[in-house]
Amino acid sequence: MKRFVYPFSAIVGQEEMKLALILNVIDPSIGGVLIRGEKGTGKSTVVRALAEILPEIEVVEGCPFQCDPEDRDHLCPQCEERLRSQGSLPHIRRKIRVVDLPLSATEDRVVGTLDIEAALKTGKRRFEPGILAAANRGILYVDEVNLLDDHLVDTLLDAAAMGINFVEREGLSFAHAARFVLVGTMNPEEGELRPQLLDRFGLCVTVEGIRDPNSRVLIMERRAAFEADPEGFCRRFAEENQSLSERIKTARERIKEIDIPRELLYEIAKRIVTLGVDGHRADLTVVKTARAHAAFRGQCQISEEDIRVAETLALPHRLRRRPFEEIGTPAASRLSQ
Amino acid sequence: MKRFVYPFSAIVGQEEMKLALILNVIDPSIGGVLIRGEKGTGKSTVVRALAEILPEIEVVEGCPFQCDPEDRDHLCPQCEERLRSQGSLPHIRRKIRVVDLPLSATEDRVVGTLDIEAALKTGKRRFEPGILAAANRGILYVDEVNLLDDHLVDTLLDAAAMGINFVEREGLSFAHAARFVLVGTMNPEEGELRPQLLDRFGLCVTVEGIRDPNSRVLIMERRAAFEADPEGFCRRFAEENQSLSERIKTARERIKEIDIPRELLYEIAKRIVTLGVDGHRADLTVVKTARAHAAFRGQCQISEEDIRVAETLALPHRLRRRPFEEIGTPAASRLSQ
Amino acid sequence: MKRFVYPFSAIVGQEEMKLALILNVIDPSIGGVLIRGEKGTGKSTVVRALAEILPEIEVVEGCPFQCDPEDRDHLCPQCEERLRSQGSLPHIRRKIRVVDLPLSATEDRVVGTLDIEAALKTGKRRFEPGILAAANRGILYVDEVNLLDDHLVDTLLDAAAMGINFVEREGLSFAHAARFVLVGTMNPEEGELRPQLLDRFGLCVTVEGIRDPNSRVLIMERRAAFEADPEGFCRRFAEENQSLSERIKTARERIKEIDIPRELLYEIAKRIVTLGVDGHRADLTVVKTARAHAAFRGQCQISEEDIRVAETLALPHRLRRRPFEEIGTPAASRLSQ
Amino acid sequence: MKRFVYPFSAIVGQEEMKLALILNVIDPSIGGVLIRGEKGTGKSTVVRALAEILPEIEVVEGCPFQCDPEDRDHLCPQCEERLRSQGSLPHIRRKIRVVDLPLSATEDRVVGTLDIEAALKTGKRRFEPGILAAANRGILYVDEVNLLDDHLVDTLLDAAAMGINFVEREGLSFAHAARFVLVGTMNPEEGELRPQLLDRFGLCVTVEGIRDPNSRVLIMERRAAFEADPEGFCRRFAEENQSLSERIKTARERIKEIDIPRELLYEIAKRIVTLGVDGHRADLTVVKTARAHAAFRGQCQISEEDIRVAETLALPHRLRRRPFEEIGTPAASRLSQ
Amino acid sequence: MKRFVYPFSAIVGQEEMKLALILNVIDPSIGGVLIRGEKGTGKSTVVRALAEILPEIEVVEGCPFQCDPEDRDHLCPQCEERLRSQGSLPHIRRKIRVVDLPLSATEDRVVGTLDIEAALKTGKRRFEPGILAAANRGILYVDEVNLLDDHLVDTLLDAAAMGINFVEREGLSFAHAARFVLVGTMNPEEGELRPQLLDRFGLCVTVEGIRDPNSRVLIMERRAAFEADPEGFCRRFAEENQSLSERIKTARERIKEIDIPRELLYEIAKRIVTLGVDGHRADLTVVKTARAHAAFRGQCQISEEDIRVAETLALPHRLRRRPFEEIGTPAASRLSQ
Amino acid sequence: MKRFVYPFSAIVGQEEMKLALILNVIDPSIGGVLIRGEKGTGKSTVVRALAEILPEIEVVEGCPFQCDPEDRDHLCPQCEERLRSQGSLPHIRRKIRVVDLPLSATEDRVVGTLDIEAALKTGKRRFEPGILAAANRGILYVDEVNLLDDHLVDTLLDAAAMGINFVEREGLSFAHAARFVLVGTMNPEEGELRPQLLDRFGLCVTVEGIRDPNSRVLIMERRAAFEADPEGFCRRFAEENQSLSERIKTARERIKEIDIPRELLYEIAKRIVTLGVDGHRADLTVVKTARAHAAFRGQCQISEEDIRVAETLALPHRLRRRPFEEIGTPAASRLSQ
Repeated sequence: MKRFVYPFSAIVGQEEMKLALILNVIDPSIGGVLIRGEKGTGKSTVVRALAEILPEIEVVEGCPFQCDPEDRDHLCPQCEERLRSQGSLPHIRRKIRVVDLPLSATEDRVVGTLDIEAALKTGKRRFEPGILAAANRGILYVDEVNLLDDHLVDTLLDAAAMGINFVEREGLSFAHAARFVLVGTMNPEEGELRPQLLDRFGLCVTVEGIRDPNSRVLIMERRAAFEADPEGFCRRFAEENQSLSERIKTARERIKEIDIPRELLYEIAKRIVTLGVDGHRADLTVVKTARAHAAFRGQCQISEEDIRVAETLALPHRLRRRPFEEIGTPAASRLSQ
Repeated sequence: MKRFVYPFSAIVGQEEMKLALILNVIDPSIGGVLIRGEKGTGKSTVVRALAEILPEIEVVEGCPFQCDPEDRDHLCPQCEERLRSQGSLPHIRRKIRVVDLPLSATEDRVVGTLDIEAALKTGKRRFEPGILAAANRGILYVDEVNLLDDHLVDTLLDAAAMGINFVEREGLSFAHAARFVLVGTMNPEEGELRPQLLDRFGLCVTVEGIRDPNSRVLIMERRAAFEADPEGFCRRFAEENQSLSERIKTARERIKEIDIPRELLYEIAKRIVTLGVDGHRADLTVVKTARAHAAFRGQCQISEEDIRVAETLALPHRLRRRPFEEIGTPAASRLSQ
Repeated sequence: MKRFVYPFSAIVGQEEMKLALILNVIDPSIGGVLIRGEKGTGKSTVVRALAEILPEIEVVEGCPFQCDPEDRDHLCPQCEERLRSQGSLPHIRRKIRVVDLPLSATEDRVVGTLDIEAALKTGKRRFEPGILAAANRGILYVDEVNLLDDHLVDTLLDAAAMGINFVEREGLSFAHAARFVLVGTMNPEEGELRPQLLDRFGLCVTVEGIRDPNSRVLIMERRAAFEADPEGFCRRFAEENQSLSERIKTARERIKEIDIPRELLYEIAKRIVTLGVDGHRADLTVVKTARAHAAFRGQCQISEEDIRVAETLALPHRLRRRPFEEIGTPAASRLSQ
Repeated sequence: MKRFVYPFSAIVGQEEMKLALILNVIDPSIGGVLIRGEKGTGKSTVVRALAEILPEIEVVEGCPFQCDPEDRDHLCPQCEERLRSQGSLPHIRRKIRVVDLPLSATEDRVVGTLDIEAALKTGKRRFEPGILAAANRGILYVDEVNLLDDHLVDTLLDAAAMGINFVEREGLSFAHAARFVLVGTMNPEEGELRPQLLDRFGLCVTVEGIRDPNSRVLIMERRAAFEADPEGFCRRFAEENQSLSERIKTARERIKEIDIPRELLYEIAKRIVTLGVDGHRADLTVVKTARAHAAFRGQCQISEEDIRVAETLALPHRLRRRPFEEIGTPAASRLSQ
Repeated sequence: MKRFVYPFSAIVGQEEMKLALILNVIDPSIGGVLIRGEKGTGKSTVVRALAEILPEIEVVEGCPFQCDPEDRDHLCPQCEERLRSQGSLPHIRRKIRVVDLPLSATEDRVVGTLDIEAALKTGKRRFEPGILAAANRGILYVDEVNLLDDHLVDTLLDAAAMGINFVEREGLSFAHAARFVLVGTMNPEEGELRPQLLDRFGLCVTVEGIRDPNSRVLIMERRAAFEADPEGFCRRFAEENQSLSERIKTARERIKEIDIPRELLYEIAKRIVTLGVDGHRADLTVVKTARAHAAFRGQCQISEEDIRVAETLALPHRLRRRPFEEIGTPAASRLSQ
Repeated sequence: MKRFVYPFSAIVGQEEMKLALILNVIDPSIGGVLIRGEKGTGKSTVVRALAEILPEIEVVEGCPFQCDPEDRDHLCPQCEERLRSQGSLPHIRRKIRVVDLPLSATEDRVVGTLDIEAALKTGKRRFEPGILAAANRGILYVDEVNLLDDHLVDTLLDAAAMGINFVEREGLSFAHAARFVLVGTMNPEEGELRPQLLDRFGLCVTVEGIRDPNSRVLIMERRAAFEADPEGFCRRFAEENQSLSERIKTARERIKEIDIPRELLYEIAKRIVTLGVDGHRADLTVVKTARAHAAFRGQCQISEEDIRVAETLALPHRLRRRPFEEIGTPAASRLSQ
């Protein structure tokens, strides 16, 4: 069943959410995006649309860990074995995946399971890959992350931060690469995340419905057109999609070369302390986000503007809230002081 | 055991509920109907009566997914296999089904189960179809949907929106068509649905008992007549039923040709923003409902009236409520301002 | 172990409860009786005593569904098979049963279970009958129905309303006749039924202890006499029991012929609307109860008095209550206005 | 391990509790005793001591239902079979048992279990006897009955009232005699029984510690003497125990012959209504208790005094309480008005 | 792994706790000790230290019930069998055990399990011994007894009181000696025991940290010395330990001969009534404790002082508390009035 | 997958946390460290960095208990057997491990499991090692220890205190060395530990983010440098790490020789009583911590300063708190009075 994906370039508005996702895709070490906001604002649509335009990747055919055939230092045991015995690895080229984490997923389902019995009997570690294996080199989409068990969110964030899924049971252990962009969504009316967990999301954006009627008509028209003829509609936006795809690819290649002057770091640190942000995670996230933004703009140096944008994305959810203060609203206004 | 169904044309009053159901049946992409209201108002009777008069469908004999023998692009694996090996598919003609979702249903029971063990052993995906498979091409009736587990409602709404039931377990996946009209009922005295979920129901109607004594007498007389002689009673309303059945069939065929002028879209968008509706789902639903209404009226253009009707059905449950405000009552009155 | 049942005619007072039960037995489509009241008022005794005097029924020997050997259109598959292969059905004549539904009963225990595995292997549907099968053509007695799980009460009421127990699991289904008089009891001090469920009980009576010392002495004397010599005591009331039994039998036969003038229906409808009763179930219940009452009185027309009695039994639990108002007391007083 | 039981005659004070137990033993149809009261007042000791002096009974050897070899109408299936095949039943003479019902007992453990599988395979009903089988013809002692699951208490009271344990599962049923004296204890500080259940206990007594120092010294001395030399101590009270045992035996035989004048019944009924007792159970319990008391006193007629005593034991827990009123205290004082 | 136990004689202060434990060891029928108090006061250390100095016992080698080879009347079935077949019982001499009852222990784990299946098949009772078997003739230490399930505490106290562990399942029963000193600890800040259970502990002491700096230095020095050289440290206190051990042994032998004058009993009873203690358990506990104390002091008669000490240990937890009054504090002060 | 660990010497600030960890590593009998504090302050980083620089240890190859091949008195059964049969033990040299205890760990997982069945069949004790076996001779890191089940924390603290993991099931027991440094972290905003458990952690430090912008820039720069080139970055701090490693090693060897004058003990005791610390654990912890601090400073005598430092680390979490007083803040200020 061929499913057509709504084109990223056809999405009207929601620029902040789009930007946060793109910057994370450019530098996944930014640490994921938390999207907060009301219902019906197309959160899921944007993520799936973005995945569609990202450069395709090479993966070893049939590998449940999505091993990169080029990256011979990080092959999974099966691919290693295959490479040893066959001399090469069959590979295919495909789009990156958006893997959904269902609310009802158990920890075993997420991290995978080690077959202890088999290990004891055969002396071989047998590992049943989980959702994190499927998400490697892709996007892990967690809808209503605030309704998920805290322990599971912690596990997701650990894996996202380290880029590794490390499973240990009864003295046996297994590790595999788990480099993915973590995207969580939540409707704050249905409960907040614990500050502990909020802090570990790299960026956070708040989305709302668009109020301009002309934009809304555009949304309706495009949606209706897409439903009526998905194939033709996608063709209409193919070129624009392609150009954005190129821009992201270039930014990814260029990001390592971007310079970060010391004074900028000092300004960032001072400002973060003044704003009353807990801990140290915010600092580097702002720096990385600013750098990714500069790269996306095609610059080789970080400007004041890049930092402003980065702060807008990286700080609001880390400001220590006063009682009854909601994330994003009054607290965020301190950002612009 | 032959069961006679109370005829749709014999149902007295409850015009709004009937209309919402008919419009959904004309264009299932409207996204289902939520019926709110007091006990004893015949919600279940109306749904079953409507199913009885809908055009019969062709289904592959014995197919648990109710495959359409004509639609060769969307056959289930078994039907595909059967077609390949036998060259043709045996089929029967039957009424569409109203499938009940019991309050105690588990997720496995609803979406079906993938037999992982069998897959590992035989290399073949074995899928045990669930309620969504049974509901394909029919009506899924969920009584007291507000008492159902949120996660399950989410699953139902996802399937209804995509027309696909997509099951994934341990890296294996299975998808089958799940195009059905979702009908949920609830008594608001027993708890509301979360706004998140409310928003995803296309239309919402509120039903009440009829207060006119003459109508009530009519209801009693008809009910008693039906109980005394179901067969004869059904015969009495056969013609009227038949004519409504034709009208629905024609509207279904004509709907694609109906024109939607841009100014109408603009008016709809402006009005929805003014009313304070969250997100973007409402806009297109109003458009589609208006179009289905025009088709049902036998028109080829959407009129102001069609939009008024559509708004009445599509907006009340999406208005942001003020504290203590109930759905349908004061909030809805904003609609008529 | 022969158990003697306390004779119906020996029961002192509690006329309203007795009447409600008798009327339901005359016309089971009235929909069951809910008995509310204090402890120690002989609710269970009355029901068992009534069952004892009802006309005996013919049942196929050994049939777990209590099939009626005369009613060849509604035989269970086993009886059908037996009839086909043997040409006739062995039958016995016995009293109707009072089946108790224990508070701890599971849904499977109540509706019966379909053996899916067996079905897949042998291609035959194997059904393990439950309590509803045992209750077919008898009385289902649910003590403390308000303490039962809501979902189960719903199931009971559905089966009672349709006269069919319809079980569906994994695409397999099985249906058998489940025509029974549903009797529920509850002590309102221990929690109410949800209005949703209350409404679905046909009639509702409230019982209290008798305050007249002479009646109480009579109760004691009779109870002591019964305990001392159950056999002799039963003989003493045999004639009276027999005459009541005949009267019920006659009423059952005559009920279909009773005329219901349209003006009466109009009066009933008007009054029910005025009283503020939700939904439409009350109307027909009042009509049916009045008709059964007329039949029991040996009349062929419904009188004002029959309607008054029917209202007293069918309306109190359906009146919309004001906060803090209990069923039966002030709300009921509106009935006599 | 021979265990010596503290002699009933050596128990100091607690006359009301002793009397209630003795009267129940004389006429078990009184319906059990509920003992309410503070900790450390020897409730368990009294019950075990009473069992020790009751006339021994004949039981079929090895019968888990404690069948009476004389009572050939009520033999269990195994004993019936044995009698048929062997012509006689081996029997032993033993003391009656006090069976403890642990707080953690499940319903299966209490009523026994029917082996459905075995029944289907072999066509024979196999029944695993439970606690009620063990308690037949003995005393069932339920410590802290108020902490037991309501449903279980209900089951106990049903069995006690009918003298039969009736188990039904999946259409199979099994019944065996379960004639026992039910004794429940509770500390009201730890929660009350529901009125529904309270009412079903025949008698209820409240115990307190003895405040007279001389009696307390006696208690200590006797307890210490018993602990030092149980055998010698028991010998010391053997004669007194024996005489009480005879008296109970005589009372049991004589009770059927005792006359109950109608005026007494009238007085009892009037008084019970005046006192505001719910339902009708109290009346007959007072009569039976008074009769047992007369028998125990060696009389052949019930006197005013017998009724006073019976009221003290049978009514306090059945008085409708006013808010905040405890059982036994102010409410009971109405008894003496 | 040889573990050295901190010597009893090296423990500084905490005299009341030590005394309560010693008196229970002299006369286990006193009924156990409940130690209430703040954290870090060495409760566990004292108990283990005391066990170390108690006279060693002879046990049948390999017997899970710790049978005493001398006490041929109370052998477990296996030892009986062994004795029968071999003519003698191999035995070893060892210290008494301190058995810990983990908070997570199930009832089966505590009392042991009867293998019903094996019994049915082989006709032999197979019993899997539990913690109570392990604790026979030793000390059962229950840390944080107030956090244990009430039902389990009840079981422990029953076994401790009777000296027997009696297990009954499905009509099978098994009993074995379970004579042990029960020691429970609790921090009252984390919840009280129910009065019902409190009353059943023989003695109760409250411990606090020592406030005298010199004593604290002594504690530190000794602890540090023990950690540095456990073997040498134990040698240092060996003689003192030995002399206490002898004293306990002598007291145990002499206790039976101690005289208790009647006037003392009267005084005890009067005082206990005056103090408002519920029930009768306190009286005999005071007497026994006083007697053990006299024996420990090497006297052959109970003095006023022995009773004062006994009251201090046996009464505080049995005084009826006024609302908000804590055990040990104001209530206890009534003791000294 | 080679993972580079961020170098201990590269960590900016957080001196108190570092010191507490180092002192525990010098003398593990201090009893663990509890780190309280806000999110994002590098708690986990510090612990892993410290483990990296600790002197490597010799372990028997393949031994799940990390047996020390030199310490022949404490070998596990398998190593003993191996030594007996082979005459020597193969060993490897490796870094000490940081073992994580997941929030979801069960008790069996933590302490290991005894295979009772195997024991009964083969007569051999088979033990499945748990997390405590893996942590032997290393660091056990428990993130969010306040969210762990109390019972489990208790088990951890017991094992840490005794240096032994003692498992007993059904009369079987198994013990193995479990000498580890316990490190727990908690965010006090998410709930406190019970005082009972707090007291059992040797030391407690509170961490906060650093507010000096220059330090923050340094942190960012180092972190970024590490992410860009982990290997080079580690080389940069290798020498400094090495020197700290030596200092810890020397302190470990020297600690036994350090003198503790009696007056110091007296001062410590007096002060602790004055401050209102419960129990006696604090005293010796302060002494040990002061001694470790002196050793770390290269002294052979404890000075006033060592005691001040020790008090700061060992007392704040043991001060009896007044209502609403938080650990660390006002209570701690009493320390400096």
